[in-house]
Amino acid sequence: MVRKLPRAALLAAIAALPFTSITAAATPQQGSGVAWDIVEGLTTEIGPRIAGSEAEARARAWADAKLKVLGFSNVKIEPFKANVWQRGPEHAKLTAPYQQPLAITALGFSVPTPADGLKADMVYFPTLAALEAAPQGSLKGKVAFVDHAMRRAQDGSGYGPYGNVRRKGPSIAAQKGAAGIVIRSAGTDSHRNPHTGATAWAEGVTPIPAGAVSNPDADLIARIAERGKPMQIDMTLMGKPNPGAPSGNVVAELPGRDPSLPIVLVACHLDSWDLGTGAIDDASGCAIVTAAALAAQKDGKTLRTIRVLWSGNEEMGMNGQGGGTHYAEMHGDEPHAVAMESDFGADNVWQVKNNFAPTNKALADKINAALWPMGIVPHPGETEGGADVGAIIAKQKLAVVDLGQDGMHYFDLHHTPDDTLDKVDPATLQQNVDAWTAVLKVIANEPGEIAEGVGG
Amino acid sequence: MVRKLPRAALLAAIAALPFTSITAAATPQQGSGVAWDIVEGLTTEIGPRIAGSEAEARARAWADAKLKVLGFSNVKIEPFKANVWQRGPEHAKLTAPYQQPLAITALGFSVPTPADGLKADMVYFPTLAALEAAPQGSLKGKVAFVDHAMRRAQDGSGYGPYGNVRRKGPSIAAQKGAAGIVIRSAGTDSHRNPHTGATAWAEGVTPIPAGAVSNPDADLIARIAERGKPMQIDMTLMGKPNPGAPSGNVVAELPGRDPSLPIVLVACHLDSWDLGTGAIDDASGCAIVTAAALAAQKDGKTLRTIRVLWSGNEEMGMNGQGGGTHYAEMHGDEPHAVAMESDFGADNVWQVKNNFAPTNKALADKINAALWPMGIVPHPGETEGGADVGAIIAKQKLAVVDLGQDGMHYFDLHHTPDDTLDKVDPATLQQNVDAWTAVLKVIANEPGEIAEGVGG
Ligand SMILES: [Zn+2]
Ligand SMILES: [Zn+2]
Ligand SMILES: [Zn+2]
Ligand SMILES: [Zn+2]
Repeated sequence: MVRKLPRAALLAAIAALPFTSITAAATPQQGSGVAWDIVEGLTTEIGPRIAGSEAEARARAWADAKLKVLGFSNVKIEPFKANVWQRGPEHAKLTAPYQQPLAITALGFSVPTPADGLKADMVYFPTLAALEAAPQGSLKGKVAFVDHAMRRAQDGSGYGPYGNVRRKGPSIAAQKGAAGIVIRSAGTDSHRNPHTGATAWAEGVTPIPAGAVSNPDADLIARIAERGKPMQIDMTLMGKPNPGAPSGNVVAELPGRDPSLPIVLVACHLDSWDLGTGAIDDASGCAIVTAAALAAQKDGKTLRTIRVLWSGNEEMGMNGQGGGTHYAEMHGDEPHAVAMESDFGADNVWQVKNNFAPTNKALADKINAALWPMGIVPHPGETEGGADVGAIIAKQKLAVVDLGQDGMHYFDLHHTPDDTLDKVDPATLQQNVDAWTAVLKVIANEPGEIAEGVGG
Repeated sequence: MVRKLPRAALLAAIAALPFTSITAAATPQQGSGVAWDIVEGLTTEIGPRIAGSEAEARARAWADAKLKVLGFSNVKIEPFKANVWQRGPEHAKLTAPYQQPLAITALGFSVPTPADGLKADMVYFPTLAALEAAPQGSLKGKVAFVDHAMRRAQDGSGYGPYGNVRRKGPSIAAQKGAAGIVIRSAGTDSHRNPHTGATAWAEGVTPIPAGAVSNPDADLIARIAERGKPMQIDMTLMGKPNPGAPSGNVVAELPGRDPSLPIVLVACHLDSWDLGTGAIDDASGCAIVTAAALAAQKDGKTLRTIRVLWSGNEEMGMNGQGGGTHYAEMHGDEPHAVAMESDFGADNVWQVKNNFAPTNKALADKINAALWPMGIVPHPGETEGGADVGAIIAKQKLAVVDLGQDGMHYFDLHHTPDDTLDKVDPATLQQNVDAWTAVLKVIANEPGEIAEGVGG
């Protein structure tokens, strides 16, 4: 029996319409302004946009249109080809000593298992070092499982070492003769959402199927390993390389008053992993740099031109196949003054670093002073730049300013299905825009020479 | 190139062993004691155990062995058959106005879509009432999407009304001629993990495919609906009824000093949904009632026998097909004094209710006094008992004590893949055991008559 629910005349009227502007979201999250508009639009109207896909092409068209509407000049799509990777069906289960389905996802550049699954003994390694120490040939025909213990860090510093389990673990396992590898996700959450990301095959290694399980699944495997009973896995990961696929950068400018001065480049990446909608990685970055560029010119042109780069194929762009490299090839002869990138989500900026030459101390002081009222701390460490600006920085030995964002929660979401709009806080997104605007107002109005960066 | 990582002799020694007792979990969660041991064991050694499955049968054997090891008497598996449901492959995507994959799961008792997907226009309804108000026939060939706005509540009171979207929404949509229905999950989290759960087909309704999307996906659909563009979905939900499947209860006793006195029944359910490992729903309940029964007799037998019921097929046991009904059929002629159930996770007990007759006021006072030092508040509302004890309560008009648990986070996890061991806090699990033990010590040692319960 279905009990009749009370109904209001209003609701009857609403229901008669096929669509309505009244929604009832359980997790409302609202924002406004240019930055929110970009993140909301990209995640809603495009969604997942893995490099080389038709979705990434739609994202480029979306970006091109959006940047024009926002008033940018010289908006251009700059296509290139790249050897990327595409996901296939994927699932896995433990078959011994207990039957347990596993929440698994393939790593980028994994090769396919047999279509009916790779069935093998699975060997537990508590760390990447333990895997490396395994005797040659000891993994023949087996699947290696590599555990680890990534923790939260405000500066995101756990991702280097623990991300190496993903970047290097598969090559090491393959070198030992393994038939496949499964790793604990490089992530800090406890949800059944595994973290994908590209692995990098070492030279001469024959690739093997490689996947990551969610943290709760890795916990389960660790508990079973502690019981000392042999483990077997049956895993199907059909993802495979996608060579020579179309990608591209989108470049746009806000011209400055003096076009002869070296430009300021601000970058992000447009592609995303396919599991989520790329809200924090990296629609937020594109939103931040774009909104800040506009805000920096709100009261009139800056002295220098600000160029925005929404890069293609960042996620699988190592080894010279990414948008950052293509940008440097296309624009390496144009004079740049400074490069900056935003690719760490939408949480607050809390720290600033630069690599300015001693001759630009006054400029550095001005930037730090502009950020001081926002509670942003100068940090003496080396700048990182980022994948989208790395090639042009290297080519021109560019000065860099890094605005460091709070990374305590970034690796809860990074490269998972959970990278969705509801995770973006409009207030911290805007704090990023404000911090970037403050920096751009100083740099893009700097009349003096901005010298090559030092260190790094 | 793969950089050689430093390696220690110790690690080399470890790696030479196929398995090791050293694990490196990123999300360590440890516990001890009987209750933890049960939750850890069931989730690790059995995992998902949907009613009617071979996994549920393994869980019964596990429970039988465990209860014997723990020292229970008269441990019995009491098999029965039930019309249940089994999951099949499932996936869905929006195909218009934007292409977006959706994190979807079928509701229990959904019928299958065509194997190559149900492709249809999708109509947005902000509430269940709006769906109900839709004109008859207006949904012909379409998929209804029903949104809502479930919020957290300490007493879990949102689940009744918002759970109705799942329980009743599919029947209402089918009555309007819909080809299928998708609902916002009845859950309070923001992860890409949809919440499953059974729907109840109203009499005379021809079942349709019915699924739930995660909250972030429902947010996306709501944003798209607000744009006013027609939506289309392509969904494949292959789950189907599984009639006459084997299930069963596991019953065990700790005999009291006076076997002639009516017994105290404490219950939980052994089956779980298949998406997670049933840690909070309801391995924790079985752990709590079982550990508390043992603790109540730690210093010697209680006056009355305490019987433990680990029920089968709670999740799909409405309409008289569940373990609670079977228990009442098997044991309805044996005198019971009080029935209690634990099926709301492992968060703290904060509230206590009873339905004692006025003649048992002294008993009620004693229970409230025993819980008082733990900060547990007496509440005058009606008792609920629960699905596993409902039939025996109805049959014998039993007295009931409800220990109300904090439900602020329960519906983040309920019926999702995220219902895993790491979500159980050993400290609050033990607080439950302590509260239950305090109550059982009073009730199972009550020498006077415990009268029929009142109200409800
Ligand atoms: Zn990124
Ligand atoms: Zn990334
Ligand atoms: Zn339950
Ligand atoms: Zn349940």
